[in-house]
Amino acid sequence: MLKISNFLLILLIIFSCAKNTGQNSNYNVELNANSEHPKLILTKQGVKDIRAQLGNIPIFDKTLEKVKAEIDAEIELGIETPIPVHYSGGYTHVRHKRNMVVLQKAGVLYQILDDAKYAKYVKDMLMQYEKMYKTLPLHPKTRSYARGKLFWQCLNDSNWLVYVSQAYDCIYNYLSLEERNKLETNLFKPFADHISVDSPQFYQRVHNHSTWGNAAVGMIGLVMDDQELIDRALYGIKGLKLNTKEKDDDGGFLNKDGKAGFLANIEEPFSPDGYYNEGPYYQRYAMYPFLIFAEALHNVKPELKIFEYKEGVLLKSINALLNLSDADGDFFPLNDGQKGMSYYTSALVTAVDISYHFGGQDPGLLSIATEQDRVLLDDSGLAVALGIKNSKAEPFSKKSINLSDGPKGNQGGVAILRNEDIELVFKYAAQGSSHGHYDKLSYSLYEDGEEILQDYGLSRFVNIEQKGGGNYLKENKTWAKQTIAHNTVVQNETSHFNAKYEIGSKHHSVLNYYSSENNHVQVASARESNAYPGTEMLRTMAVIKDEDLEKPYMLDIMKISSDKANKYDFPYYFLGQVIQTNFEYKTPKTLNTFGDRNGYQHLFVEGQGKPSSDNSKLSWLNKGKFYTLTSVTNNNDELFFTRIGANDPKFNLRRDAALILRRNNIKNTLFVSTIEAHGSYSPVTESAINSNSSIKELKVVLDSDNYTAIKITNINGKTKLFITANSNNNSKHNVNINGNNYQWTGGYYFK
Amino acid sequence: MLKISNFLLILLIIFSCAKNTGQNSNYNVELNANSEHPKLILTKQGVKDIRAQLGNIPIFDKTLEKVKAEIDAEIELGIETPIPVHYSGGYTHVRHKRNMVVLQKAGVLYQILDDAKYAKYVKDMLMQYEKMYKTLPLHPKTRSYARGKLFWQCLNDSNWLVYVSQAYDCIYNYLSLEERNKLETNLFKPFADHISVDSPQFYQRVHNHSTWGNAAVGMIGLVMDDQELIDRALYGIKGLKLNTKEKDDDGGFLNKDGKAGFLANIEEPFSPDGYYNEGPYYQRYAMYPFLIFAEALHNVKPELKIFEYKEGVLLKSINALLNLSDADGDFFPLNDGQKGMSYYTSALVTAVDISYHFGGQDPGLLSIATEQDRVLLDDSGLAVALGIKNSKAEPFSKKSINLSDGPKGNQGGVAILRNEDIELVFKYAAQGSSHGHYDKLSYSLYEDGEEILQDYGLSRFVNIEQKGGGNYLKENKTWAKQTIAHNTVVQNETSHFNAKYEIGSKHHSVLNYYSSENNHVQVASARESNAYPGTEMLRTMAVIKDEDLEKPYMLDIMKISSDKANKYDFPYYFLGQVIQTNFEYKTPKTLNTFGDRNGYQHLFVEGQGKPSSDNSKLSWLNKGKFYTLTSVTNNNDELFFTRIGANDPKFNLRRDAALILRRNNIKNTLFVSTIEAHGSYSPVTESAINSNSSIKELKVVLDSDNYTAIKITNINGKTKLFITANSNNNSKHNVNINGNNYQWTGGYYFK
Repeated sequence: MLKISNFLLILLIIFSCAKNTGQNSNYNVELNANSEHPKLILTKQGVKDIRAQLGNIPIFDKTLEKVKAEIDAEIELGIETPIPVHYSGGYTHVRHKRNMVVLQKAGVLYQILDDAKYAKYVKDMLMQYEKMYKTLPLHPKTRSYARGKLFWQCLNDSNWLVYVSQAYDCIYNYLSLEERNKLETNLFKPFADHISVDSPQFYQRVHNHSTWGNAAVGMIGLVMDDQELIDRALYGIKGLKLNTKEKDDDGGFLNKDGKAGFLANIEEPFSPDGYYNEGPYYQRYAMYPFLIFAEALHNVKPELKIFEYKEGVLLKSINALLNLSDADGDFFPLNDGQKGMSYYTSALVTAVDISYHFGGQDPGLLSIATEQDRVLLDDSGLAVALGIKNSKAEPFSKKSINLSDGPKGNQGGVAILRNEDIELVFKYAAQGSSHGHYDKLSYSLYEDGEEILQDYGLSRFVNIEQKGGGNYLKENKTWAKQTIAHNTVVQNETSHFNAKYEIGSKHHSVLNYYSSENNHVQVASARESNAYPGTEMLRTMAVIKDEDLEKPYMLDIMKISSDKANKYDFPYYFLGQVIQTNFEYKTPKTLNTFGDRNGYQHLFVEGQGKPSSDNSKLSWLNKGKFYTLTSVTNNNDELFFTRIGANDPKFNLRRDAALILRRNNIKNTLFVSTIEAHGSYSPVTESAINSNSSIKELKVVLDSDNYTAIKITNINGKTKLFITANSNNNSKHNVNINGNNYQWTGGYYFK
Repeated sequence: MLKISNFLLILLIIFSCAKNTGQNSNYNVELNANSEHPKLILTKQGVKDIRAQLGNIPIFDKTLEKVKAEIDAEIELGIETPIPVHYSGGYTHVRHKRNMVVLQKAGVLYQILDDAKYAKYVKDMLMQYEKMYKTLPLHPKTRSYARGKLFWQCLNDSNWLVYVSQAYDCIYNYLSLEERNKLETNLFKPFADHISVDSPQFYQRVHNHSTWGNAAVGMIGLVMDDQELIDRALYGIKGLKLNTKEKDDDGGFLNKDGKAGFLANIEEPFSPDGYYNEGPYYQRYAMYPFLIFAEALHNVKPELKIFEYKEGVLLKSINALLNLSDADGDFFPLNDGQKGMSYYTSALVTAVDISYHFGGQDPGLLSIATEQDRVLLDDSGLAVALGIKNSKAEPFSKKSINLSDGPKGNQGGVAILRNEDIELVFKYAAQGSSHGHYDKLSYSLYEDGEEILQDYGLSRFVNIEQKGGGNYLKENKTWAKQTIAHNTVVQNETSHFNAKYEIGSKHHSVLNYYSSENNHVQVASARESNAYPGTEMLRTMAVIKDEDLEKPYMLDIMKISSDKANKYDFPYYFLGQVIQTNFEYKTPKTLNTFGDRNGYQHLFVEGQGKPSSDNSKLSWLNKGKFYTLTSVTNNNDELFFTRIGANDPKFNLRRDAALILRRNNIKNTLFVSTIEAHGSYSPVTESAINSNSSIKELKVVLDSDNYTAIKITNINGKTKLFITANSNNNSKHNVNINGNNYQWTGGYYFK
């Protein structure tokens, strides 16, 4: 049967080709592997394997069943391809966005289930698009630097084509040559041209937007077997050079160094460790076009060896991305990142399945796939489904990891220190492209997936139209990107690099040392010398498991050296209810802002006090757990309780708290603190367990150019000593403190 | 074997009795049922049945295993009975509280497992207590109106005795008569006396504190077979009359009408529907002594027919309490109630098991017991375990319910309107004893266990010692009890009854009508005439399921008639992020308080505006769901965005928001609003579904003394009419509105 139908198919193709010979050389289909369809994501062999296993691969079967139910329901509702009108979140935007997904899925269903109703549905909708597109002007909304036609920005048009290329590939052989000709001539080719040659400011860049553009052009090019489009996708628009000074809507340079195309987009933003310079939120977004186009290239142009490109960075980047998530799988909101985005997003289903199939079949990935509870309906999804079925899954264990930033891995990085349920994310990276924040040496702290000290994230409600069209709000610039919005030091109420992207993007922090060999002590130390010219900041952060304490605690040593006296503000963005302080403070009757600019205008001062002792302590309760900050302070320090939300005319900001330690008029100084997680409170049993701090005293016992030493005394009177090497961290060290000698090799001493 | 050991036991008892004859008539043990032990909660027959089923009753076996592990670990740690020093949350408090539970459990283990190590442990600890107690002065902390000895308040001492009586009963026969004599003479009898005759201000009342006291005295009396104690428990201290004007720490009257004892404590606070006048949080707390003492009375004094008392109100009250919880089982925080307390608390395990065993074996209770995942280790727990094992469990379905308040059920009540995932809790009850809030006709609104419009609850961190010893904070009085803290109307910035308990406790609201027959429309309507003399408030609240709207919505009609012009404030305590308003507002640069007193001093004004149209709308997003308030407004209205937290020097209050509608200088007026729950937002898919309101217009088309009619127009232009009868709600009605006649019988018309 199959053989006969294949034979008929071949006859049909020959016949179709014959009929159209000469009309357009692209349509001269030859009977080689490249001319078979599907070939892009699904392959002929893959479809055959899938059909053979159906009913016998639970997670795949379940996904298929859900997708079938979803698409059957859509088919029932009928096809709608409205004239484009709205921004993100609005009706026409949402509809076209939905259509692209539906088309892709219907195409897959046609292949797997061999049911022509899906092919017909795809064809009918594509024909409606063809009819509309050929006369469609630019989208009426004018806000984008690169307007699309179906959507207000080329970015969304590119999303559409990435998905729809797959649908087209799936029903390619279902269509007559004439139909294909019509679609390619009036829809796909001009569509690909609009997002590329007609929108070079969008396409000809190294940026996640362009990655989508490249993938879109490349994927439709692969389906159409159009070498010009494929080349344009891989290498950019031939011969085109853009003004390197122009900027996009987000303030990023359009094309700083003239690079473009998919390969450049792999080359530039990924570090050798697979860290993506814009951070995990954007990596997640960019991941889909990177991987889906890579999979397509792997299938259609295996000679490119795309998965081996730049020492296999694409697959490495998936591992990096998974490691940039907390215990719940939520990505750390570095730079512009919307909280709550997690590895449950569909792009990560793609990433995990592709990584498993084309990578080393890491059994840890199978446990994430199991949590995701769905797979790609393609060859890689089949591989994952079979792996799970054959009980190969193992826990994906996240350990401490240090990820370098920069194309060559020498532009700082991000260290994640993990011990039991405590995760510390320490950012000493480069600017992070146009989505970067002015947050040198900042950190955030988590316990079992819950924030202890938060990073604010972005100021945006993605796709919620009522909030500024779902786009970046002005508070993203005036608040979220500013230094004071982060858990790092602010000098003289100004942001790092004066919040200037041009300056910030020239610099990066530098690793002092990273050490994770000792199970009880994880340490990262990094230096920043450019954020405030004339001032050097060296921050050493550790997560320490001390057998006398219930849980691992954080130790933070920020050493500042400046050529002049400054005012330093040091915020702690704790979340939850204040339980206790050991210092006195007054709460004002009316609330005033903490300052006038650089983010300070968004903070109200809710309380103001002075340290009562050498250590200032704040305990709080959040989501049933207690936390205590202990910070080394002196009589001249000031302590402020602040709350976000001033100068926020549209209630765009969350009303979150901070304790800010201020130190006035000093050149060199040291901020030393610990944060303990301890105990619990249940409103059901109403019992408060271990609600008090176990750290009695933090004391700086040495602070020289070369070494800083902190003595930590717990409530039982036991002491520990932490000495960090401020330089020469690989050497042998020998330090005398109060008559005692301490010797070690490496970055730190702890005992 | 058993027979022989029984025989030996009897011999032993006879021997022991003989030895002690005449020493104390209470010790003259006769060989009737009452002299057998255990008899209080566990019974001899029950122990026999449990032992026979062990290993064959999964939920019971599992509970037993956990309790055994817990107590074995405690035994390992050794016995500690420290000299009392601390308030709640402090070491000695926590230790003695823990001990009472451990003793009770160890006693049970001794009976069920027949392992003498548990009996010895109980005996040893009791002997330590005996040694300490006989010379123990009053607890050193002086804050309570009735100081205990082991704890800072008699209440906790009573808790202790309720548990320890059970332990004593379990090991009664393990002890020699001499040992029993020692314990009873030096520990139990003086202990019972201290919390009763020595602390009449605590004991001789109708109050949850006294219920604990009564149960404690009664239970030890039952074990000791001391009729004097049993009578004191049931009827109060003989011949004692207290000053009826005195108040306790919480501002409640000590003994308003001279009633006392366990039976009076059943009589007074429970309505015939089983609603407990202090609300579910305190009912949950009181439930344990009510039920455990009732179970003991049932077992030892079956002739009292305690479960039939007041037409079986104790068992009815369990059903009421379960219905006073949201979809997650969390109790609605009426009056002073700490949020998060739920039917997962151990007192509710007692309640559910006893209700099942001694009530009608409601299979719905078995599903709650299954969720609780544990049972009592006694006869009732066995019954539940067998029910679950035999697959008798059915869902406990909560429907709309109207619970009357007051001993005779004629002092207002609480109506809970339920439709799909929407729950509206409408409070038109009496004052609620000393834990009552000044919140006449207030409500809160829930969707699937999450708050839409919140009731603040209490201002207290129960058992968190750092927060005022874990006791009521002063903000409970200055904020949480005040009217402005609730979703009801405030007149001239003063609280209901001027926040005077003496006045408030004289009055209650009155039901206009309640109707839940129509599956699509649930309505409750009630009137309050005393909160503000000269002003009458009639509030009609409905939850309506309209097929054109995604989810049921709330309709709220508050009709106010006064003999003079007033200023009315009408708050909406929404939770979450403002998404959109249809009115203009300004946000101030500095935040000032909304007023100077009556709770207003705790609110900051974050925004101020005026209606732009006849309907003012606010949409917000909370926990991934959208909500929209639509309120009928006029040009003279003012709209305030407020935030709790002013004048809060210890950060005791949550920083929660409200929108407050203010109407100035008017006698009679109508506040009409709807709240819709609609759509969803996921940060993982980043798609906003149905994020806009479906209600286009709310219009008052009639407002007379007798009727109020609201026309509701949805975005498709379809209209519905809701007419409520402001009086004579059982009659036939005939109303003409704009030339159309509407006829119906009952409280409301809706079509």
